[in-house]
Amino acid sequence: MGRARKKAAASKTKAVHAKKAKAAGKAVKKAVKKATKKTAKKAVRTSKKAPAEAVPLPLPEPQVPSDERRATDRPVRHATAEDMARGQREISVAEFFTKNRHLLGFDNPRKALLTTIKEGVDNSLDACEEAGILPEVKVVVAPGSEEDRFRVTIEDNGPGIVKAQIPKIFAKLLYGSKFHRLKMSRGQQGIGISAAGMYGQLTTGKPVSITSKTSRNKPAHHYELEIDTKKNEPRIIVDETIDWPVDRGTRVEIELEAKYQKGRQSVEEYLEQTAIANPHVSLQFVTPEGEVKDYKRATDQLPAETREIKPHPYGVELGVLIKMLHDTKAQTLQSFLHTDFSRVSMRVAKQISDAAKLYERARPSRIARQEADNLFKAINRTKIMNPPTDCLSPIGEELILAGLKTQIEADFYTAVTRPPSVYRGNPFQIEAGLAYGGSLQSDGLARVLRYANRVPLLYQQSACAMTKSVISTDWRNYALQQSNGALPSGPLIVMVHMASVWVPFTSESKEAVAHYPEIIKEVRLALQECGRRLAVFIRRRRKAAESEKKKAYIQKYIPHVAIALREMLNLSERQEQSLVTQLTDVLERSRS
Amino acid sequence: MGRARKKAAASKTKAVHAKKAKAAGKAVKKAVKKATKKTAKKAVRTSKKAPAEAVPLPLPEPQVPSDERRATDRPVRHATAEDMARGQREISVAEFFTKNRHLLGFDNPRKALLTTIKEGVDNSLDACEEAGILPEVKVVVAPGSEEDRFRVTIEDNGPGIVKAQIPKIFAKLLYGSKFHRLKMSRGQQGIGISAAGMYGQLTTGKPVSITSKTSRNKPAHHYELEIDTKKNEPRIIVDETIDWPVDRGTRVEIELEAKYQKGRQSVEEYLEQTAIANPHVSLQFVTPEGEVKDYKRATDQLPAETREIKPHPYGVELGVLIKMLHDTKAQTLQSFLHTDFSRVSMRVAKQISDAAKLYERARPSRIARQEADNLFKAINRTKIMNPPTDCLSPIGEELILAGLKTQIEADFYTAVTRPPSVYRGNPFQIEAGLAYGGSLQSDGLARVLRYANRVPLLYQQSACAMTKSVISTDWRNYALQQSNGALPSGPLIVMVHMASVWVPFTSESKEAVAHYPEIIKEVRLALQECGRRLAVFIRRRRKAAESEKKKAYIQKYIPHVAIALREMLNLSERQEQSLVTQLTDVLERSRS
Repeated sequence: MGRARKKAAASKTKAVHAKKAKAAGKAVKKAVKKATKKTAKKAVRTSKKAPAEAVPLPLPEPQVPSDERRATDRPVRHATAEDMARGQREISVAEFFTKNRHLLGFDNPRKALLTTIKEGVDNSLDACEEAGILPEVKVVVAPGSEEDRFRVTIEDNGPGIVKAQIPKIFAKLLYGSKFHRLKMSRGQQGIGISAAGMYGQLTTGKPVSITSKTSRNKPAHHYELEIDTKKNEPRIIVDETIDWPVDRGTRVEIELEAKYQKGRQSVEEYLEQTAIANPHVSLQFVTPEGEVKDYKRATDQLPAETREIKPHPYGVELGVLIKMLHDTKAQTLQSFLHTDFSRVSMRVAKQISDAAKLYERARPSRIARQEADNLFKAINRTKIMNPPTDCLSPIGEELILAGLKTQIEADFYTAVTRPPSVYRGNPFQIEAGLAYGGSLQSDGLARVLRYANRVPLLYQQSACAMTKSVISTDWRNYALQQSNGALPSGPLIVMVHMASVWVPFTSESKEAVAHYPEIIKEVRLALQECGRRLAVFIRRRRKAAESEKKKAYIQKYIPHVAIALREMLNLSERQEQSLVTQLTDVLERSRS
Repeated sequence: MGRARKKAAASKTKAVHAKKAKAAGKAVKKAVKKATKKTAKKAVRTSKKAPAEAVPLPLPEPQVPSDERRATDRPVRHATAEDMARGQREISVAEFFTKNRHLLGFDNPRKALLTTIKEGVDNSLDACEEAGILPEVKVVVAPGSEEDRFRVTIEDNGPGIVKAQIPKIFAKLLYGSKFHRLKMSRGQQGIGISAAGMYGQLTTGKPVSITSKTSRNKPAHHYELEIDTKKNEPRIIVDETIDWPVDRGTRVEIELEAKYQKGRQSVEEYLEQTAIANPHVSLQFVTPEGEVKDYKRATDQLPAETREIKPHPYGVELGVLIKMLHDTKAQTLQSFLHTDFSRVSMRVAKQISDAAKLYERARPSRIARQEADNLFKAINRTKIMNPPTDCLSPIGEELILAGLKTQIEADFYTAVTRPPSVYRGNPFQIEAGLAYGGSLQSDGLARVLRYANRVPLLYQQSACAMTKSVISTDWRNYALQQSNGALPSGPLIVMVHMASVWVPFTSESKEAVAHYPEIIKEVRLALQECGRRLAVFIRRRRKAAESEKKKAYIQKYIPHVAIALREMLNLSERQEQSLVTQLTDVLERSRS
């Protein structure tokens, strides 16, 4: 094809073929000028014509109504600082999350159903465990008032909720008991359940219904609540005392626009995976069709109770230190350091004060910014024990193995619980498990099961530090196939659990863990340990298969060898037979 | 190896080999019980021993100070509903984001520097464009008061900020003018710049400094501000009038803990990519070493001014509709529908009212929930024009090509601007571009450049809907190599831009676009169009290379053919020569 024709073809397809890109350099500025004008024109044209072709909504003919045209065709007036100032307004956190509801896990009706159930179940399990009660949680998804609506009920046997707290817990975002402490729990933000209620209200206009009872001798309280999104405050619709024939517990009901569907990322998958990581929990699920599914507890023993810890000095930023100095109830610097932090003995507190050249009996609130800066540096220069780790409750290698085995039929299982580590002063602990072979699909990529504080994470896999660690581990070292930048492939399930007093999620919907290097490293170390064990298994199995092949091959020739020997040595038929047996025996022994 | 030895080896490596997993099923419940106890014990042991080995902090010998032991070894008391109630508290949005600062893009010192600059530059560009001013923005990163601190200054020639608004804009999260409107702009949340100031305060204890001037005839105002994180309110440290010899503009200075480093995801990369997508902007960058880098504008024309639009009725949820009915200034239902929404003429408003069986002159605030439900359904049954699209300002195919060419030396470039589309009632428009071959690395994965409203997105690539679309496109159809679940490989750069009145980011740090199916689909359509053009180029080039090879091969034999013919036909040497020329000529013509 001639050069000229080539060029013509290229410009026909609008593609730009530029073997001499450098030469084009000078022309760019011109092109840019031209293009700006052209684009501006095009934008106007597009706006009149294109949408009718491109958009999936049901559309009439693109006739612009006459009163509409008048409204939008007036020229744009440029804004002044004063114009802009008039537009400035406070944004309520509820308004913010209404518009950004995908941040809370309410991107689409299917996920909305899962997120609502997850938030409810998380709260129930946290409350039961904190109160030392073996959790029994019932989840009912019933058809709602319209076709695409469902009524979700989550009921537990937990300690119940004090009446005065109910409205704010269920109808105010950023309210709760778990944010201001360092303790391993499922909830931590004070957003989840209110967000679920807000989504219900947004899509169905209906309030959230809560029933709670704190003791057999007290009546149950029943509330119906709405959230005033402009103020982020609860609006009480119903407040009454009712009879509820249980000892104690809480029941939440939310009607929402949702989609119920089985398979990956379904309610069932979430409940199954929850049961695996929480063998002390009894779950019952009633589907919209009325089917009852029971996930019975496998142990009567609650996980080791975790302690609340104080912040570790190494994880505290200067700004937080200044705020703590201002807010503390301690009378002296030394007692402030000792009581408001973990791992600071009176002796270490004195040491820090000295290093900062501050009087240990100084009043904390009187310490100036520059002095705080010195104190901050002194803290980071002083040797302080690592944070305590009895605030963490890992699942444990044995339980991970047991969990994997109940769910997955494989040929090989392994699990690792790493020792605790620290990121930004927060203790955390990583666990990993593998299942390989058996009934698992051998073509396609490995499947990753992620957990944070025993809660399965079903969405945003690719955004998660755990996934990143799985991808960045070189599985080819462990006898698996893996393409660059992808998960390993083969009949493999990888399970990762992070336990921490504060899990750094990438968004409020708590679906993925943020990329802190300490976390990525620990996950990788756990995976490498699992990988080495897997490699031993795979290599042994391959070697065994090869041996088997060779053995079969030799075995085939033993009779012929025997015949040859019989002829050469003039053996009897019986002797020949015995020779075959002996040779086979030798082969067996040498190969096994 | 014997079965017995195999088993022993497996248990040595702690791996569990379970060829007959089903048989193990029964044993699980027992194992679980045993394991629970064992783990509990182990957790206690671990807490005393492990941290010293596992943690990257500088550590003393793990001696538990005596007063510490007393504090933590007391038994855990289970909490009652009343205990839990005492812990319940409101969480200020500033406290929330201090603890979750990775949500805002402040995970680590290097990213913190970039995020701070990005938020400042975004604001400057938005303000200039809205005021119809050609933006000139200067970014200075100077060494700070300590080794790991930097002082960032962002100065623009924008319209300035009215004095009364300065404190809240810079020291209150969730405050701004862009959240409550539908208009394409870089900022949209009212969080960014306050978050940068808060991070500076958190890590250095220093306030943010702002200087702003709205007109040549007025004095400049200078503020130093802190944010009261407990209340999420500004605290004014300095408030004064100063001389600033500019016509108008804003200067923001923030000192923060940061790390300055070149390369991928650096400030330079961000500024370069910003210049590409914003050819009307002049940027100047002064590095900590005092080096000055200029990114000069390539055009004097501002992008087409975008209009603010009203929400489209199809994108409004029931809950929002109820709130709008309650808040509107309109006196009748018909005028409410006409004035508070886009694309609803008085005629269509009457149509909707009729379909909902509501009187069109009804007072909006008097409409009950059930009636609102009917109205909501009526809206979705009524044919309404798509939202207007002059609210969008795409970069345009020519400018994308020009931008790619200035930055990347390749053999092939192409770009596509899709027609506008709609997600959740919000208009958006996707553009894509490719650069292939030339100086691009031919081994390894393709590089993806992502933009949202002309802002380059440098982090969280794997969490982004754009990346998902690139991965889920089958590039093998377009003559490229691609592994399952990975980016295509080869000397390729993929550029994607989303323009919208509301970009749904996966977190407040605005680094990745959420996975709305409509967005993923549009990106894929744009990529497929680009891909088809690329395939034409690659296949043509391959064919040309093959032809060239064949031609060379034939050419080699022409002289021999000529010699043979000369001998057979008794030709003269001149005739032979002419034959060679003729044959070569035929070959040339047949091949070109």
